[in-house]
Amino acid sequence: MLHKPDGVDSRMNQQMTSQATQLVDRRREFHRYPEPSWCEYWTTARIVDHLEHIGVDEIHVGAEGMDPAARMHLPPTSEREQWRERARERGADPATLDRMDGATGCVAVLDRGDGPHVGLRVDIDALPITEAADDEHAPAANGFRSDNEGYMHACGHDGHAAIGLGVVEAIAASDFAGRLTVFFQPAEEVLGGGKPMAQSPHVEGIDALFAVHLGLGHGTGDVVAGVEKPLSVKELSATVTGDSAHAGRAPNEGANAIQGMAAAVQSLYAIPRHEEGLTRVNVGTVDAGDAINVVAADAQMDVEVRAETDALAEYMYDEVDRRLQASAEMHDCQGEVELLSEAPRADSDPALREHVAGIAADVAGVDTTIPVADFGASEDATYFMDAVSEAGGESSYLIVGTDHPSGHHTSGFDIDEESLSIAVDVLTRAIEAY
Amino acid sequence: MLHKPDGVDSRMNQQMTSQATQLVDRRREFHRYPEPSWCEYWTTARIVDHLEHIGVDEIHVGAEGMDPAARMHLPPTSEREQWRERARERGADPATLDRMDGATGCVAVLDRGDGPHVGLRVDIDALPITEAADDEHAPAANGFRSDNEGYMHACGHDGHAAIGLGVVEAIAASDFAGRLTVFFQPAEEVLGGGKPMAQSPHVEGIDALFAVHLGLGHGTGDVVAGVEKPLSVKELSATVTGDSAHAGRAPNEGANAIQGMAAAVQSLYAIPRHEEGLTRVNVGTVDAGDAINVVAADAQMDVEVRAETDALAEYMYDEVDRRLQASAEMHDCQGEVELLSEAPRADSDPALREHVAGIAADVAGVDTTIPVADFGASEDATYFMDAVSEAGGESSYLIVGTDHPSGHHTSGFDIDEESLSIAVDVLTRAIEAY
Amino acid sequence: MLHKPDGVDSRMNQQMTSQATQLVDRRREFHRYPEPSWCEYWTTARIVDHLEHIGVDEIHVGAEGMDPAARMHLPPTSEREQWRERARERGADPATLDRMDGATGCVAVLDRGDGPHVGLRVDIDALPITEAADDEHAPAANGFRSDNEGYMHACGHDGHAAIGLGVVEAIAASDFAGRLTVFFQPAEEVLGGGKPMAQSPHVEGIDALFAVHLGLGHGTGDVVAGVEKPLSVKELSATVTGDSAHAGRAPNEGANAIQGMAAAVQSLYAIPRHEEGLTRVNVGTVDAGDAINVVAADAQMDVEVRAETDALAEYMYDEVDRRLQASAEMHDCQGEVELLSEAPRADSDPALREHVAGIAADVAGVDTTIPVADFGASEDATYFMDAVSEAGGESSYLIVGTDHPSGHHTSGFDIDEESLSIAVDVLTRAIEAY
Amino acid sequence: MLHKPDGVDSRMNQQMTSQATQLVDRRREFHRYPEPSWCEYWTTARIVDHLEHIGVDEIHVGAEGMDPAARMHLPPTSEREQWRERARERGADPATLDRMDGATGCVAVLDRGDGPHVGLRVDIDALPITEAADDEHAPAANGFRSDNEGYMHACGHDGHAAIGLGVVEAIAASDFAGRLTVFFQPAEEVLGGGKPMAQSPHVEGIDALFAVHLGLGHGTGDVVAGVEKPLSVKELSATVTGDSAHAGRAPNEGANAIQGMAAAVQSLYAIPRHEEGLTRVNVGTVDAGDAINVVAADAQMDVEVRAETDALAEYMYDEVDRRLQASAEMHDCQGEVELLSEAPRADSDPALREHVAGIAADVAGVDTTIPVADFGASEDATYFMDAVSEAGGESSYLIVGTDHPSGHHTSGFDIDEESLSIAVDVLTRAIEAY
Repeated sequence: MLHKPDGVDSRMNQQMTSQATQLVDRRREFHRYPEPSWCEYWTTARIVDHLEHIGVDEIHVGAEGMDPAARMHLPPTSEREQWRERARERGADPATLDRMDGATGCVAVLDRGDGPHVGLRVDIDALPITEAADDEHAPAANGFRSDNEGYMHACGHDGHAAIGLGVVEAIAASDFAGRLTVFFQPAEEVLGGGKPMAQSPHVEGIDALFAVHLGLGHGTGDVVAGVEKPLSVKELSATVTGDSAHAGRAPNEGANAIQGMAAAVQSLYAIPRHEEGLTRVNVGTVDAGDAINVVAADAQMDVEVRAETDALAEYMYDEVDRRLQASAEMHDCQGEVELLSEAPRADSDPALREHVAGIAADVAGVDTTIPVADFGASEDATYFMDAVSEAGGESSYLIVGTDHPSGHHTSGFDIDEESLSIAVDVLTRAIEAY
Repeated sequence: MLHKPDGVDSRMNQQMTSQATQLVDRRREFHRYPEPSWCEYWTTARIVDHLEHIGVDEIHVGAEGMDPAARMHLPPTSEREQWRERARERGADPATLDRMDGATGCVAVLDRGDGPHVGLRVDIDALPITEAADDEHAPAANGFRSDNEGYMHACGHDGHAAIGLGVVEAIAASDFAGRLTVFFQPAEEVLGGGKPMAQSPHVEGIDALFAVHLGLGHGTGDVVAGVEKPLSVKELSATVTGDSAHAGRAPNEGANAIQGMAAAVQSLYAIPRHEEGLTRVNVGTVDAGDAINVVAADAQMDVEVRAETDALAEYMYDEVDRRLQASAEMHDCQGEVELLSEAPRADSDPALREHVAGIAADVAGVDTTIPVADFGASEDATYFMDAVSEAGGESSYLIVGTDHPSGHHTSGFDIDEESLSIAVDVLTRAIEAY
Repeated sequence: MLHKPDGVDSRMNQQMTSQATQLVDRRREFHRYPEPSWCEYWTTARIVDHLEHIGVDEIHVGAEGMDPAARMHLPPTSEREQWRERARERGADPATLDRMDGATGCVAVLDRGDGPHVGLRVDIDALPITEAADDEHAPAANGFRSDNEGYMHACGHDGHAAIGLGVVEAIAASDFAGRLTVFFQPAEEVLGGGKPMAQSPHVEGIDALFAVHLGLGHGTGDVVAGVEKPLSVKELSATVTGDSAHAGRAPNEGANAIQGMAAAVQSLYAIPRHEEGLTRVNVGTVDAGDAINVVAADAQMDVEVRAETDALAEYMYDEVDRRLQASAEMHDCQGEVELLSEAPRADSDPALREHVAGIAADVAGVDTTIPVADFGASEDATYFMDAVSEAGGESSYLIVGTDHPSGHHTSGFDIDEESLSIAVDVLTRAIEAY
Repeated sequence: MLHKPDGVDSRMNQQMTSQATQLVDRRREFHRYPEPSWCEYWTTARIVDHLEHIGVDEIHVGAEGMDPAARMHLPPTSEREQWRERARERGADPATLDRMDGATGCVAVLDRGDGPHVGLRVDIDALPITEAADDEHAPAANGFRSDNEGYMHACGHDGHAAIGLGVVEAIAASDFAGRLTVFFQPAEEVLGGGKPMAQSPHVEGIDALFAVHLGLGHGTGDVVAGVEKPLSVKELSATVTGDSAHAGRAPNEGANAIQGMAAAVQSLYAIPRHEEGLTRVNVGTVDAGDAINVVAADAQMDVEVRAETDALAEYMYDEVDRRLQASAEMHDCQGEVELLSEAPRADSDPALREHVAGIAADVAGVDTTIPVADFGASEDATYFMDAVSEAGGESSYLIVGTDHPSGHHTSGFDIDEESLSIAVDVLTRAIEAY
């Protein structure tokens, strides 16, 4: 039985199927153990457990499932090793951890004879957000709130992992002829895992690739058959380096990195709007200075630019670079911009969108099928889409609606678990009917 | 024998007296174990060991030596407890740690019958600076570099603690008649410890108070008999609180605390110069935002203002407050300024300066006696000076020169250990002759 | 014969029709005498001369053609009177100048019995830009460069006035049955003249309204049948008022309006991008301060906001207001924002666009007919479009391409005069066929 | 009889001497005809009239009294010629205007045989400030308010010119033996006239130089015998040059000079305070941009830096230059700083100050003699002081107090005319007794 907080209108059937029960159980298990990008050791090991239980033809674990050299935005090794150790303590299979070889995520393959090669990509990482603990928040009220304090599945990737397993299980039990490759991708939140998986041989020969996200402002019962305009994105680390000085005795002897940073922040947000399309810039974090009475010698910012096209993202990058340099120079400091990660824009193919739309209309629980919608955010699934497209295949990025009481990336985020079955059903039928 | 790095011209006598040897040994021991403000557990316990060995009439440890309610700028309890535990592991006497009752520092009293009550105040805390490790840096070359990585005695308080013990020892062995109270003050670097000690009963009845600092741009052989114009200072925590939002999808829904912070930084440094005297402002640290793709909801800054007079410091505080509020409002955020700590301006008394100048001229190793100098920085010794002055006593803040290869508060800071004896000799004779 | 600068590929027929010759002559005459917004006395009088020569049924001059109380962005009376006097000296008919009653522009009506009421709106004002004088610039090379130094027809309104007259003349000579009202609108560049004319009774009963612009990035031979998304726009005057002080002696006594202005400029350009559509902001002019050694007491800025919708323009206005207030307050000043003028967004009606597209395809000289395009800028023709739409009529805003060697609003702007005939032909046939 | 506004305590003797009457008459005549820097044609001609009437041995007019090549901060020739023509219309002697040769000011010499060579420098220019017109303002109430609307003697130079004439007249009537050279210097307000006069041969051989200013915060009856620390000053013109663009269509194509200017303003006021002494910076005026809907291509700022020493003024200049360049570069513009004028710091000589102090104590009307005071502002009299000092002479810059109801450089500024006699008496006796 589902435990929903009071006042939430669950449309779920009281006679829940065993598939639905399993989806909910798995999602909650993942929800309780959120791991940040590139640290999804326990999550990966648990997915492998399930895959082995289901029975698939191939499992490529960690580094086996990607081009490890293409990884972006890796946290320090010490941090990753702490999470690996923690996963081991939590009960992750040591053999699986060893196979990962320092990477996370996995690729599952069902090989069912002649037929199309279909891909499905889901992402599995969590966010450094402290989960709400009040009774209004269903995971807290129902006992599956995060065990990893300070981390949270606040973007539904717990559900995505469960959906990926659900599709494998459903296709495994079906008459599907062909090859199904499911990518359980790590490190989407830092745009770090899409590129290395998309550059692996597992993508080769895919005729149709599906990617899926829950929610994004769409309620339970909505299905978007394919999105357009996921924004091109670049994530940057910007630093300003000056010289410290005694702030009381001789401020003139310093080169003030905090002033350089402040000038840069103001200047970055003032990059001109561009005639060719929408652009975004954000300074998400700032960490600067050592002591209250010392002119700061160092400032570090995490900066993100997004844009409607890859060319506009380049424009934004170039502007960030020039403005950061000038802001630093203004205060006699040095500025430096480092690219942490990036993802291109890639649109869903109209034909595949229509295929999905036709399927979705007939799936139980789907009230509204939206042929196409603007994505409005960024995603590194676009690396898969580009790779498939370049090899002659097609792809579509679906949104499966879910009632969510609070926005993505907020501490009160939650999903309507009924949407898990809808997602599995839409995807399974779209794969079978392809 | 002293080990000085090559190329440093030590004026030290090869036939070092045992006093000098002991000063150097003690200073180096303190140097190896730097503890930050309000965390000087081991340092305090070690001073108490020495005082007990020397034999004094009273020792007031931790909370016994101050008005604990007047403490400012306390770090979180958890952090202080970690340092307390670390001190215990390092061998600090558990009984002494218990007596401290959560505070640090101590007060030593020699009671030698009728005569003047003389006070001496030294400070004992270190800084959150990583010490240089190269061979040019004498403590590294000679094996007494910081054991507490990330912390360093970069302002000479290791020497001050040794000097305080040296004076107690010398007066204990002398014919001095009267009462000597030596304050081993914690938390000077955050201006947190002066006020609570100056409000304790131990200050009552002091006729002449001395405070001392090594270096400050003066080389070995210089003695400044008393400083003027230690700047009035206020340390503030300024916060900007906004609302987070998805930086890619809907930046307009956020209230950007990082933009508010940046506007504030620019505005604070642009507070007008004041016709009535010099002013200083510094934003020493900034910590803001949680994630690269989220409009930041929080920013925190450590801000310091200093000025030639207390009234000018108020002017600066008021300007910081108004500008922070307006900067926050500019970006639809809330701004708040909290006073962490402060210290008034207090000048050395001319008569006591002259007393010191007369003594210093005759001390071996003193080449130049400077009657008075501008201090140019800030100090919470001024709380002692004000307290003594209000009760009818007099005070002088001395500088004992020391060759220092690098500026105060820098990773290469070091002292010329020969200056330790000079300081002890000047202070001892000034006390005896008062 | 047309004199085109070397290297410009004129597609003009050597056998120019007399209509074309007349269009060119009139355009050049207007070009030589550019007048700024609300000062188009000579231009209006000259248009009236031509209309009287052509023979129309009604001419409403100046205040007769509009609701004078709705005028926005009027320059000072003294300035307008200077231009009126200058027009008189240039030979404008004094009786016409008197009829204007302080307003400019005019409305011409052809009343041809039963049939639809068709409107055409053209604008006639020039810009405060100094015209290029080099031989590369055709008006300079061919002797019709601006006689009003510092002012220039740099947006093609000289051509628009000639086109308006050409259409009146062509319809007057045609079999058109119905009513044609042509609005020669003043003060488009300041968005000041559209509203008062659109609120006049002359707009009543219009079934189909056309507006037209040359160029806008489209070359000769292109016709855009109707534009979408002319941006909603607001023009503002923003002031910061502080207190002056002697900058050397007592800067602290001032309230620095120039600092307030600078903070505002930085903050205005950093208004967040909005999820619901594109926005623009520009601080076009700044005038601040009186003397180099005085803290400035006053700063004035002309600020423009534009947006994809009227609601977004309100968002931008509110942000400008809040940021200006906070920037002023930051420096102890007062901020004030005054609305100078505004224009709504209004899109061309699809049906009328299609009507135009069908016509244009058959007009000589038209190579490419573009059914619809984004306008990307702002226009107060939208007041006419809204008024017509509210009364049940329809409207379309056309672009007639013209090769222009330099951008609009630049000193080297010019048009390909061949496009004048194309514009007249497209509009005349669209009116006749309606 | 003097008409003083109600509430002003006039200490003036009802029995005014004829000298006093004449001083007041002359001052009021100068007051009614204020002329800005380098445009003092009428003022100079009127001074020459008086000198000729008094009878002096030499008069060097305009270019004869200076090194014209050293003039700084000259306004455009056309502007100067307009003032010259206006002076002619007001009745200035055409022959005198011709002698000036485009420069203004004059030098008067009394040659009275053997004795010291004494110099006196007074300044004669006015300010671009609109004078108060209310009855509280004595010049308005008493009919000698500025005839040159928009210009005003708001710094007392009208009084200085009258004092200079008064001293010449008094010395001419005395037994003084030696040489007296009085410099009626133009263009002090822009620091443009001091250097060219100080480089003229008329300064050669001066043993003692006096300069004088009324007021500066000192009331009637105070005399400061000599000032110290007139600030070293540099006046700069800073420009930012970018590229214009249509602010609505393509802001990205522009290089926004107004944004560059705003960044510069914020950065200039945030130049760090300097350990070696006080510094000042002011952006006094900003003029930028051409049209509300165009990205601004040009911005111009008048910037002043002052400092306690010439070296600190260089520091400020270098910082302005670097920050302006970086601010421009931040917005893809070019920045340029031009030095308009400058004046060094020069202190009064102690011996000459004492000479003045001794004299002043005995002058009627002097209540308080202040031996020395900080000047706190800037002056190009320092060029004379430096020139005299380098040649072995000495100098003192006096302040003669005057009750002033409003600050210098404000529209309500006025002097207490009683102070004119005091100034003449102090200076005359100081010259006679030298």
